[in-house]
Amino acid sequence: MPGDSMDKPNTVTCTAPVNIAVIKYWGKRNEELILPINSSLSVTLHQDQLKTTTTVATSRSFQEDRIWLNGKEEDITHPRLQSCLREIRRLARKRRNDGDPALDSKGLSHKVHICSVNDFPTAAGLASSAAGFACLVYTLARVFAVEGELSGIARQGSGSACRSMYGGFVQWIMGQKDDGKDSLAQQVAPETHWPELRVLVLVASAERKPVGSTSGMQTSVQTSRLLKHRAESVVPGRMVEMIEAVQRKDFAAFAELTMKDSNQFHATCLDTYPPIFYLNSVSQQVIKLVHRYNRHYGETRLAYTFDAGPNAVIYTLQQHVPEFVQAVQHFFPPETNGGQFLKGLPVDGVALSEELKQAIGLEPLPKGLSYVISTKVGPGPCVVEDPTQHLLGSDGLPKKTV
Amino acid sequence: MPGDSMDKPNTVTCTAPVNIAVIKYWGKRNEELILPINSSLSVTLHQDQLKTTTTVATSRSFQEDRIWLNGKEEDITHPRLQSCLREIRRLARKRRNDGDPALDSKGLSHKVHICSVNDFPTAAGLASSAAGFACLVYTLARVFAVEGELSGIARQGSGSACRSMYGGFVQWIMGQKDDGKDSLAQQVAPETHWPELRVLVLVASAERKPVGSTSGMQTSVQTSRLLKHRAESVVPGRMVEMIEAVQRKDFAAFAELTMKDSNQFHATCLDTYPPIFYLNSVSQQVIKLVHRYNRHYGETRLAYTFDAGPNAVIYTLQQHVPEFVQAVQHFFPPETNGGQFLKGLPVDGVALSEELKQAIGLEPLPKGLSYVISTKVGPGPCVVEDPTQHLLGSDGLPKKTV
Repeated sequence: MPGDSMDKPNTVTCTAPVNIAVIKYWGKRNEELILPINSSLSVTLHQDQLKTTTTVATSRSFQEDRIWLNGKEEDITHPRLQSCLREIRRLARKRRNDGDPALDSKGLSHKVHICSVNDFPTAAGLASSAAGFACLVYTLARVFAVEGELSGIARQGSGSACRSMYGGFVQWIMGQKDDGKDSLAQQVAPETHWPELRVLVLVASAERKPVGSTSGMQTSVQTSRLLKHRAESVVPGRMVEMIEAVQRKDFAAFAELTMKDSNQFHATCLDTYPPIFYLNSVSQQVIKLVHRYNRHYGETRLAYTFDAGPNAVIYTLQQHVPEFVQAVQHFFPPETNGGQFLKGLPVDGVALSEELKQAIGLEPLPKGLSYVISTKVGPGPCVVEDPTQHLLGSDGLPKKTV
Repeated sequence: MPGDSMDKPNTVTCTAPVNIAVIKYWGKRNEELILPINSSLSVTLHQDQLKTTTTVATSRSFQEDRIWLNGKEEDITHPRLQSCLREIRRLARKRRNDGDPALDSKGLSHKVHICSVNDFPTAAGLASSAAGFACLVYTLARVFAVEGELSGIARQGSGSACRSMYGGFVQWIMGQKDDGKDSLAQQVAPETHWPELRVLVLVASAERKPVGSTSGMQTSVQTSRLLKHRAESVVPGRMVEMIEAVQRKDFAAFAELTMKDSNQFHATCLDTYPPIFYLNSVSQQVIKLVHRYNRHYGETRLAYTFDAGPNAVIYTLQQHVPEFVQAVQHFFPPETNGGQFLKGLPVDGVALSEELKQAIGLEPLPKGLSYVISTKVGPGPCVVEDPTQHLLGSDGLPKKTV
């Protein structure tokens, strides 16, 4: 602000959510601009359980752009970071040149310090880059007083980050233009639209790190005939069906399409040469559990989806959560006690019927899951107004964590 | 023969081979006639290691058609068995009606007794129905003096059985006609064509019985968009490429296409709803082992392929067998000693270099495999001339096994 002292940094802190795709993004048509070969659709998870927090400070006293991620200084020259910084500064400059006089002192020529932390373990295999880049772009935009459409910039940090720019149900429209200007995220329905919907993240016990998604999708685009067919001929229809299912709050339709699309994504990974396996024996057991649970009740009460790793994300309705969590604890007997095993929104305890156990009839897999996070649909990025929450101190350096 | 005593049965014994597809068959366009949605191509394995033996006897004293499989009497009214019996008898009748006088006494109106044994464990997950129906049809044809094209009849017993009617490299041409008359097997190259080729069957330790192939492929045809695309748009080109690779004896081309096609078949299983998993963690480890082995040598020396189960079939050239078998024993430390672990053609012992072990760099999976069968390409069905080998005695009943 104009009244700032010369050396006190202009500091903004924001948070941004994780999103979990139900129509999957896999494969780029332009690596640099991060333009996808198909549209995708995701659910934004609530930040009470999972979020990234980012503080950005600018000051004329800063000598260079710097970034700290999860407590460690990282290389600011990372190309995707640079893309986001460059694009935000370009928009800010454009806005100033277009004549907004209030913007002069926003420190456009100042260097930035960025500090970001995830409040969820990276080992959870949740796409931390989506929340991370969404938070970075959202916070930078606040610092530089940039408004309007920002998902196209977040997309250039990490493709799926564009979907974390909105709450609720969000589609990433692939777009047609070569410059990517029409490859943007758009809210399909707000977070208040379907209040009964619940999300459970089943974190599989860590094994080796699987193939990263950037190189994985490159190999898939180069080698999988089935991926090309999926992107061109299957996904367009599924986007329409999924948007309708969300709008109608038709859980069975939503759930079945979610499972089919997750399976088809992993099928294209297997059709990649050499093949990529993200689903392990724990994932296979979760898939069987879900199908047998649904079959037992004669209706689709649960859906699974898997990203580029073995962890399952389960969608269900509020009323089915207690029994399902009990079933998970039965078929994946935890190492720790029940309290530590279940994180997030509280879940009532219920007894598991012998009938259901027998209908599922799987051999329990002890310690297959390390924990479960219970959450729901949530809003998009938010500004944190409380200055004590800044991750950077008045010296522009990360605060010491106690 | 005309001189047969009234009660002594006319008895014939034949053997037939297992075949392993390198372009996979998955999905029928006609369930009853067993007409496939795509052509396929297989390698016939040598009967010295794996075969089915079938004895068929006819006698006017037999009261009804009967069948014994692996020592146990089974239901002769099984529709596919009935298809084969009916078709052979129809051809025999046609031939007699067309005027071959030698055929009158062949007992066309007589009942048959059938006795069949596999010399390989069913648990090996090798498509025993292919060898079984090929052997049945071949033996019935001999008993009823039917000659000519028989693969169309074997196909009606079990689709892939039509490919076991020939040795060497065999294609099953899907055909176009509604009555299936042009859906037949054809030899692409005889068993002598590529003498260096070797086949290793890696039998994974038995888990639960996976989804059967008949119901599995039905569900896939009904639900997998990727299977439809594969059958219509991918396989036709692959058939051409595979036939060329076999004819040129181009191992790298043969191997890469074999692996890609196995992976694509399993991808379509995963795209099935609910998804079907045939590959388990042992299969995934074999796949990784093969790719890392090939990468280490900078050339494709090994190929894997998997049917509707977790067992791997490896194709390689003779000179690479000893080292690969050693690598298998290292990364799948056997429960039994080395002698019992390796069956079939003898394999020289060699030392495994530390360099190769490190290049593969997998965590050994103890007892993941129960044994390995070493074999090669082999001939089609054969008549067993030695009457002491008949499985049915002169009373038309199974001989007592000592």
